[in-house]
Amino acid sequence: MEFSNKTANLSGSSIRDTFKALANNKIISFAGGMPSSAFYPADEFASIAQNILNTNPAKALNYGITEGYAPLIEKIRNRATEQNILDNTSENQDSPQILVTSGGQQAINLTAMILLNEGDGVVVENPSFLGALNAFRSFGANLYGVPMQNAGMDIEALEKTLTTNKNIKFIYVIPTFQNPMGVTTSLQKRKQIIDLAYKFNVYILEDNPYGDLKFNPSTPSLPTIMQLEREAQNRGNVIYTGSFSKILSPGLRVGYAIAPREIIDKMTVCKQVQDVHTPLIPQMIVNDYIENFDLNKHISKCNAHYSKQCSHMLNCIDRLFPKNSGIKATKPDGGLFLWCYGGKKDSATLAKEALDLGVCIVSGNGFLPNSTDSTSSFRLNFSASPLDKIEEGIGILSKIVG
Amino acid sequence: MEFSNKTANLSGSSIRDTFKALANNKIISFAGGMPSSAFYPADEFASIAQNILNTNPAKALNYGITEGYAPLIEKIRNRATEQNILDNTSENQDSPQILVTSGGQQAINLTAMILLNEGDGVVVENPSFLGALNAFRSFGANLYGVPMQNAGMDIEALEKTLTTNKNIKFIYVIPTFQNPMGVTTSLQKRKQIIDLAYKFNVYILEDNPYGDLKFNPSTPSLPTIMQLEREAQNRGNVIYTGSFSKILSPGLRVGYAIAPREIIDKMTVCKQVQDVHTPLIPQMIVNDYIENFDLNKHISKCNAHYSKQCSHMLNCIDRLFPKNSGIKATKPDGGLFLWCYGGKKDSATLAKEALDLGVCIVSGNGFLPNSTDSTSSFRLNFSASPLDKIEEGIGILSKIVG
Repeated sequence: MEFSNKTANLSGSSIRDTFKALANNKIISFAGGMPSSAFYPADEFASIAQNILNTNPAKALNYGITEGYAPLIEKIRNRATEQNILDNTSENQDSPQILVTSGGQQAINLTAMILLNEGDGVVVENPSFLGALNAFRSFGANLYGVPMQNAGMDIEALEKTLTTNKNIKFIYVIPTFQNPMGVTTSLQKRKQIIDLAYKFNVYILEDNPYGDLKFNPSTPSLPTIMQLEREAQNRGNVIYTGSFSKILSPGLRVGYAIAPREIIDKMTVCKQVQDVHTPLIPQMIVNDYIENFDLNKHISKCNAHYSKQCSHMLNCIDRLFPKNSGIKATKPDGGLFLWCYGGKKDSATLAKEALDLGVCIVSGNGFLPNSTDSTSSFRLNFSASPLDKIEEGIGILSKIVG
Repeated sequence: MEFSNKTANLSGSSIRDTFKALANNKIISFAGGMPSSAFYPADEFASIAQNILNTNPAKALNYGITEGYAPLIEKIRNRATEQNILDNTSENQDSPQILVTSGGQQAINLTAMILLNEGDGVVVENPSFLGALNAFRSFGANLYGVPMQNAGMDIEALEKTLTTNKNIKFIYVIPTFQNPMGVTTSLQKRKQIIDLAYKFNVYILEDNPYGDLKFNPSTPSLPTIMQLEREAQNRGNVIYTGSFSKILSPGLRVGYAIAPREIIDKMTVCKQVQDVHTPLIPQMIVNDYIENFDLNKHISKCNAHYSKQCSHMLNCIDRLFPKNSGIKATKPDGGLFLWCYGGKKDSATLAKEALDLGVCIVSGNGFLPNSTDSTSSFRLNFSASPLDKIEEGIGILSKIVG
C-alpha cells in the first residue's frame, strides 16, 4: 500500500491510543487533557438541546454556513473583546475575523494548510502539543524545536533558529499554561517573540486553549500575543486559536480561529473542503449556554477545583517520589498539566511500566519535534482524577520512577 | 499575502456562497442539496438529545476515540451488511473497517489526503460533485474529467484517460443518483469501471450519499461497486463513503468511510490531525435514532415525497420551458437533483439573472473538472421547495432560459 508522501510516516498520537486503552477498565489516568467530567454542565446542555430542537429545528438540522453559527461568532467576538484579544473599535474591513472550527485542532490544521508547502519550516516550542506537531507533519513541514525554559522559549535559540533555517512560515506557541509543561511565557518573552516574527517576516500561531484556566489568583493575567502585536506595529501577523473544549466540553468539538480577514477567508475555503461546516447542535449548545448561563462563573468553579487538584498532585509528588530520583515538577498557575523532568528513566519505558501497574501517564517523547528523540520527562494531568486516585497513582509511580 | 501553493487558487464553492445569499430572504431555492426540512425528525432528536445528556453525559461530553462512537459503527456495519456493501462473514483482520467522519465531505477529503501527492491525477465524472473536486484540488491534484452519458461514464473515454495520463491514483464516482446529474451508472458500466481499475492499478472512490433515496419502485436497486469488486477479485481497491446528511440531517455532519483496514487505519491517523474526532452528540443522536426508530420507514416517507416533487418539477419544465430553448432534463429515479442540459445560454449568466428574479439555481460550470470551462447546463434541486414554489420558480426560469 503506497500512501502519499506526507502521510506515509504519520502515526497516531500516543495519547489518542491511550484513550482506547482507557475505554474499558479502571486505570488511574493522568493521561488525557480533559476537564473533570463532574463539572460538565450536562443538565443545562440537556435543556438547551431540547429547546433548540423544539423551537429551531430547521436551523439546527439543515446545512449551515462554513464560517459558523452567526450568534456564536458574536459571542466569541464579545468575549475576545472583553479579554482584549480583539480591541473594541467597530468592525471594519481590516479588523480580525472569526471562524468557528471543529475543535481547536482544526484551527491549527487550517493554519498549516493555508501557509505550508511541503518542506517549509515551523518553529515550535520543545516540547509542544503533539496534536499540533502531527498536523504540521501532515503537511510535510520541517519542525524546528526551541528549548523551553521556565518562562517560555529560549529567545536566543529562537533567533538562531530563525537565522539559520530558510522557508520558516510561522512560530507556534502556547504562551499560557503550556501543553505539556504547564509553564507560561513571560511578558518580556512574548514581546521578544513578536519582535523576532517582525524581523524574520513570519507569522505567529498563538494557541490558547488553556488561558481561561488560571487558578493562581496571585499571578497576573498576561496579555495575549495577539493583543501585544496589535499594540506594537499591528501588522496582523498573529493567528489566534481558541477552544471551548477545556472550559465547557471537548466532546462538543467547538473551537475557533481569530485572524485578519484575508487569512480567515482562506481558512474558510479550506474548511469547506474538509468538513463543510462545524455541526450546528454543538455550536448552538455553546451559544445558548453563554447566552443563558454564566460561563465565567462556571470557569471559576472549575478553576477552584483544579487548583486543589494541582496542589494535591504536587504535594503527593513531593512526599512520595524518591528524593534520589532527581525528578522535579513544574508548578503551573493554571491549565490542566504539569511536567516532570530531571529523572533518569526513559519515559516511554516508564509509561509502559506504569500502565502495567494501572496508571496511565504520557511519556515525553511524543511532545518532541524530533519524534525519534527520547526523554525522561513526562506529562501528568491533574484535572480529571479524584484526589484519592491522585494519591494512589502517584504512589504507584513513586515505586518505578527511578 | 502568500498562501501555500495548493490553496492559493482554491476558491469557495458557489453553492456555499449561495447559502449565504439565501440566509436572509425569500428566494425560491433550487440550489441546495438538502432534504426537505419538513421531514427532519426533530421531535425524536429532541427527546434523544435530552436523554443522552441526562443519562450518559460523560460519554457525550468528554473526548471520544477518533474511529467514532462504537455503537454507531456497529449500526453502520449492520446496515452496510443488510445492503450487501459488506458481506456477512464474521469480522476478521482482512474485512473492511469503518471510520465515522464529519460528514461525507471529510471521508472524501481523507481519501485524497492518504492517496495524493501534489501533481497526482484523479479521474472524475464530468460533471461531478464540486465539494469533492475542490477537496482534490486542495491536495494539488490534476483532475481528468470523463464525459457522463445517460448510464454513467463513457467507458471508452475512461480507458483512454487512464492510458494517456500517468500517476492517476483513483477514479471518483457517484454511481447512484449522481450529483449533479441525477443519473445512475448501469451495472455493466460499474463492472467495466472495476475492470479498468484493476488493469491500471488504481483505487475507486465510490461516493454514495444518495443511494437510499430511490423513489422509482420500478427500477432495480443496483449493487454497489464495493459489492461488485468483492464478488470479482476482492482486491480491496474500493473506498466507499456514505452519509446521514441526506437521509437524516446534514447539519449533524455525520458520515463514514468503509475500506480495508490498512486504509481506514491511515485515514484515522489523518482524521486525528484534522479534528480529533467527530462530535459525540451528533453521532449519538444518529445511533439512538436508528436504535429506537425506524430509519427505513423514515426514508420511505421522504422518498414518497421526493417522487412527487421530482415529477412535479419535470412536469413544470415540460409545460413551461419554451420548446425552442432546446433544454432537456434528466429523469432521476432517486436522489435530490435533476440536470438541465442542451440550452444555449451560459449557465453562469442564467444563474445571475435568475437570482435577480428571486430564483436560485446552480450553474453547471462549478461541477466541471476544468473550472474555467463554461456550460449551458445547470442543476436543480427538487426536494426542498413546496410544490407551488416549484411551479412559480420554473415559471420564472422559463422566461429567461433562452
